[in-house]
Amino acid sequence: MKISFKNDYAEGCHPNILSALVQSNLSQEESYGADSFCQQATAIIRKKLAAPTSEIYYVSGGTQANLIIATALLRPHESIISANTGHIFTNEAGAIEASGHKIHSVPSESGKLTADGIVDILDQHQRAPHQLKPRLVYISNATELGTTYTYQELNDIHQCCQQHNLLLFLDGARLGQAIAATNNDLNWQQIAAFTDVFYIGGTKNGALIGEAIVINNPTLQTDFAFIVKQKGALLSKSRLLGIQFYELFREDLYEQLAKHANAQAMKLKNAFHENGCNFLTDTFTNMIFPILRNEQIEILRSQFEFYEWKKITQEQSAIRIITSWATPDSHIDKFIESIKKI
Amino acid sequence: MKISFKNDYAEGCHPNILSALVQSNLSQEESYGADSFCQQATAIIRKKLAAPTSEIYYVSGGTQANLIIATALLRPHESIISANTGHIFTNEAGAIEASGHKIHSVPSESGKLTADGIVDILDQHQRAPHQLKPRLVYISNATELGTTYTYQELNDIHQCCQQHNLLLFLDGARLGQAIAATNNDLNWQQIAAFTDVFYIGGTKNGALIGEAIVINNPTLQTDFAFIVKQKGALLSKSRLLGIQFYELFREDLYEQLAKHANAQAMKLKNAFHENGCNFLTDTFTNMIFPILRNEQIEILRSQFEFYEWKKITQEQSAIRIITSWATPDSHIDKFIESIKKI
Amino acid sequence: MKISFKNDYAEGCHPNILSALVQSNLSQEESYGADSFCQQATAIIRKKLAAPTSEIYYVSGGTQANLIIATALLRPHESIISANTGHIFTNEAGAIEASGHKIHSVPSESGKLTADGIVDILDQHQRAPHQLKPRLVYISNATELGTTYTYQELNDIHQCCQQHNLLLFLDGARLGQAIAATNNDLNWQQIAAFTDVFYIGGTKNGALIGEAIVINNPTLQTDFAFIVKQKGALLSKSRLLGIQFYELFREDLYEQLAKHANAQAMKLKNAFHENGCNFLTDTFTNMIFPILRNEQIEILRSQFEFYEWKKITQEQSAIRIITSWATPDSHIDKFIESIKKI
Amino acid sequence: MKISFKNDYAEGCHPNILSALVQSNLSQEESYGADSFCQQATAIIRKKLAAPTSEIYYVSGGTQANLIIATALLRPHESIISANTGHIFTNEAGAIEASGHKIHSVPSESGKLTADGIVDILDQHQRAPHQLKPRLVYISNATELGTTYTYQELNDIHQCCQQHNLLLFLDGARLGQAIAATNNDLNWQQIAAFTDVFYIGGTKNGALIGEAIVINNPTLQTDFAFIVKQKGALLSKSRLLGIQFYELFREDLYEQLAKHANAQAMKLKNAFHENGCNFLTDTFTNMIFPILRNEQIEILRSQFEFYEWKKITQEQSAIRIITSWATPDSHIDKFIESIKKI
Repeated sequence: MKISFKNDYAEGCHPNILSALVQSNLSQEESYGADSFCQQATAIIRKKLAAPTSEIYYVSGGTQANLIIATALLRPHESIISANTGHIFTNEAGAIEASGHKIHSVPSESGKLTADGIVDILDQHQRAPHQLKPRLVYISNATELGTTYTYQELNDIHQCCQQHNLLLFLDGARLGQAIAATNNDLNWQQIAAFTDVFYIGGTKNGALIGEAIVINNPTLQTDFAFIVKQKGALLSKSRLLGIQFYELFREDLYEQLAKHANAQAMKLKNAFHENGCNFLTDTFTNMIFPILRNEQIEILRSQFEFYEWKKITQEQSAIRIITSWATPDSHIDKFIESIKKI
Repeated sequence: MKISFKNDYAEGCHPNILSALVQSNLSQEESYGADSFCQQATAIIRKKLAAPTSEIYYVSGGTQANLIIATALLRPHESIISANTGHIFTNEAGAIEASGHKIHSVPSESGKLTADGIVDILDQHQRAPHQLKPRLVYISNATELGTTYTYQELNDIHQCCQQHNLLLFLDGARLGQAIAATNNDLNWQQIAAFTDVFYIGGTKNGALIGEAIVINNPTLQTDFAFIVKQKGALLSKSRLLGIQFYELFREDLYEQLAKHANAQAMKLKNAFHENGCNFLTDTFTNMIFPILRNEQIEILRSQFEFYEWKKITQEQSAIRIITSWATPDSHIDKFIESIKKI
Repeated sequence: MKISFKNDYAEGCHPNILSALVQSNLSQEESYGADSFCQQATAIIRKKLAAPTSEIYYVSGGTQANLIIATALLRPHESIISANTGHIFTNEAGAIEASGHKIHSVPSESGKLTADGIVDILDQHQRAPHQLKPRLVYISNATELGTTYTYQELNDIHQCCQQHNLLLFLDGARLGQAIAATNNDLNWQQIAAFTDVFYIGGTKNGALIGEAIVINNPTLQTDFAFIVKQKGALLSKSRLLGIQFYELFREDLYEQLAKHANAQAMKLKNAFHENGCNFLTDTFTNMIFPILRNEQIEILRSQFEFYEWKKITQEQSAIRIITSWATPDSHIDKFIESIKKI
Repeated sequence: MKISFKNDYAEGCHPNILSALVQSNLSQEESYGADSFCQQATAIIRKKLAAPTSEIYYVSGGTQANLIIATALLRPHESIISANTGHIFTNEAGAIEASGHKIHSVPSESGKLTADGIVDILDQHQRAPHQLKPRLVYISNATELGTTYTYQELNDIHQCCQQHNLLLFLDGARLGQAIAATNNDLNWQQIAAFTDVFYIGGTKNGALIGEAIVINNPTLQTDFAFIVKQKGALLSKSRLLGIQFYELFREDLYEQLAKHANAQAMKLKNAFHENGCNFLTDTFTNMIFPILRNEQIEILRSQFEFYEWKKITQEQSAIRIITSWATPDSHIDKFIESIKKI
């Protein structure tokens, strides 16, 4: 089988997690989030965020997290603002609209939303009650294009939301990779302070399954559990999620894994760069989008798996290369070798 | 901590599953159900069901399975018929109604629905288009009261559905326990043949997480995957679900675990019986509902955890005792000892 | 064509309304509720209710009013309590569930809900977040069985709602007939004071079309207009609704029409009574439900139109007879003549 | 009060309709679409369309028609393609998304959608099941910008839909004005033949209220009535809608009224044109969008009501002027006089 750089969920989970599962397996635990592991994970994460009153819910996937949050936070006439590259806008089979809410999209080359983009949407939706009331701003960090928000950028969006009575939600499916990026200047506490809700992605950073939804804004906490249950996300064996987040956060594992993933991608970035390649976006996370000629793509494709992302010209396309917490040096070395040859 | 008989999801999973997770952990696998484990599990289950064209989707929980099935099978004006004890009617935080569909409830003492009960609902809903069009019949086996359907009963419901153009869906959160019951006369092939859709519960029978939705009726298979994705149930690391169902079904593990759970409950049933107890329902699965005097309940409660299920008189209530694949003899022995004393 | 006693919407509207439509026809008016007629109607109704801050929305039908109110008032995990005879529970094609909300039904012989019935539902829904949170109490006055609430009964329900943090909604599709009933002891101001929301039915009491939703609870007024628009109920030519409610309420027309309808029904009630008939419910509005032998029903049916409502025995059924604001004495006289003969 | 050119629903209805209402007022009629007027209107419209098997439903407004059609035609994972100027995309308070369906928007300067625009959306939605399945194409004729489709354009879209298994829905809120446009080359039969569903707008062309949904594709007719009821659109006094469409279509009234509205707008178009104005779109219906300097707009605004539609430069904006079936020559003359002066 070819080595895959298609995504960061091709492997299982970090071995520490499996060990913890084995060790705790036969103890009897409470269910539906009341187990001791969820409790411990929550205590640790709250501490890390300096957010002792944030509530945390552990769910099984990102689309699920997104649709639960949209459902819980919005009244039927309230809508969402997202970059047009946002996962919720393009890749969730209409999960948000199926929950009853429109997503207004803002064109974005970088995958990032800006305060100006938000204000544009507000300006276009002034004819109440014939038009929806934008209420929730959705951003992802890292973005779907591997880019990350700076402190200044996130603060600008936060201020904009405060000013216009908007809620801010950060999709952190790859939050570890964002925080571990070498160009990052945002810390956990700032992310918690700037957002009303965000989630910490486990699946793409070393867990078998699981995302931790963190609700910072206390007015949004009321009755949230009902929505988790109603959308089928309240696991009876919540221990499975609790154990994983406990293992990822009890020491520094979550960030270490992301650092590894990023570092592996940066090696490939350098190799492409040295080969004279341009990139669709300039990234410091575990995703790179080198622009290659069609014949170069064909050569790489014969040995590795990855997605062709976007046609640039008739002759060239950007491909997407993703590394993970588990990508071994041997895979990187082989890929670099091939890059040098094309 | 007190020994718990509250439910069958207090422990982790069968050790074989953990071993398989450990062993496969670092292999790269396809995602979203295309991994080799899901493929293999599906092949084995199809063979067991003698249903080579059934489609199987692996999802993370029972409420999720139920709401996906309701969404995928029904048009907006079509409704569901269920016993009033049905999990979807009482314990899923309105997940089905939140998907847009009404559930008509039929009073049931045993937890079972009957063909007559179905026809009653049809008779009461003849004023189209002012009334809904009942379309989906929901039953659970084993039921929420630990009872099971006989071949004759399921066949009657099946015939009734065929005659009235209704779809039949069997919630198998505890299907293993039903099939392993000593009074059971239904086999896997019959269940697949009689139902349009059913699901095989993993969570309550030895898995960490997971239910396998089996779609037997080919007209219901079209585009089902979209709904799985839209409801946030399409796991990227589907290997986690595939491995578990492969382990449960590659030999006889699934039924063995259910047999163990049932046998442990039957020991307790006998002990209560010998003590002169009556039961709310007569069960042969892993759930029993002995009726006890309040002071008896208090004594047991001081040593064990369980739910008080239903007040029978001012003096007596039925309690619910559940055993699991993991309940050790030592727990059973201690409980029997206490039963003898009350 | 046979004379119809099937319903109270077989005729057009009171001639005053047509005159007003003709007279105002070519004036240019604002739209979407901002027209001068809606404004005037609202001023008059507020005055009648002694509720100067109530907001009023005019919509085109009862099912529409009900689904808008459920959508606007409830979060996704909140549910509705209704008598099992409630229009929303049985006759609206699942409009409420299609809006995402479950209706808990309380058995009722009289069509009325009681405080005890409400508390029963609350008692059965204590397992948050696995069970829904009942939030809205739905009653109709007059009920679907022609009965009406007394001051004491409505006050009891109101107190119960206050105590349990429930909202109270009164469906007034036949509110005029309730208020005009000879046994009624509730006035307009009390109805406004006891309910969070109610609506005044126009269609069944002399209008061509239209129901006036009155929102008394100020916390429920925010953004209500968005929901009216989103559900397709915000008429551009709102003048059509405004003119009708202005005509019905500028003097006493609304109550006069209801009095006439009731009086006509009471004449029939007396005739049946004198003939020795029993009734399904004892009513003082425009609906009566005499219980007749099958052969009696057949004789009446050969001359008049009405619904057979409920089979009482193999030999007897209750029929439903409805009169309207437009029922002429000649129709009543003919029917009484026939009653005497059977 | 200033003369208004803000919309085509400022006046009541054509006097013939009021006469018919008066004349039929006290007859007893069937309800919920079974009245004799709806039956007659349907017979006439079917004949005009040469579509004897089309089913017709009469509802009270355009947003309502749109959301019913989306609900009835689509499964939950199916989406809609519309020009970004489409009424459903911008001006219906999220009614379609609240019904669970996403609308993919195609940028359009003219208000019209093209086959190429449709194919673009299809090309961007190839990653099933992560992306939605576009299924319904929405167009309006006349468009929200007053433009109309030619035979060739509509045929192209029809062919494209056939080829790609898409349904075609035409929103005819201003269908009369489109058909009566001097540059129109589409007739009623072609519109019925090219579309799966369309609706004929009454409200904006001489009715008090009402749109007639015409379902040409027989596979879409099944159970449509349930959705009409479920969305609160099934009027008990359907006679109100039936009478109006009967009056509009029993002779030639519908087209005559549209011709009048268009002719009045064209007089204003000429006046602006002679004054050297450009227009946002070149229209032949009852809507024009002249581009004026800010000070010109201020002068006109002091005497007339209209909407400022779109800022073109810092100095110039397009305004929207709408005439109606009821616009008298005196209003046109006054406005032309003012145009000449600016």
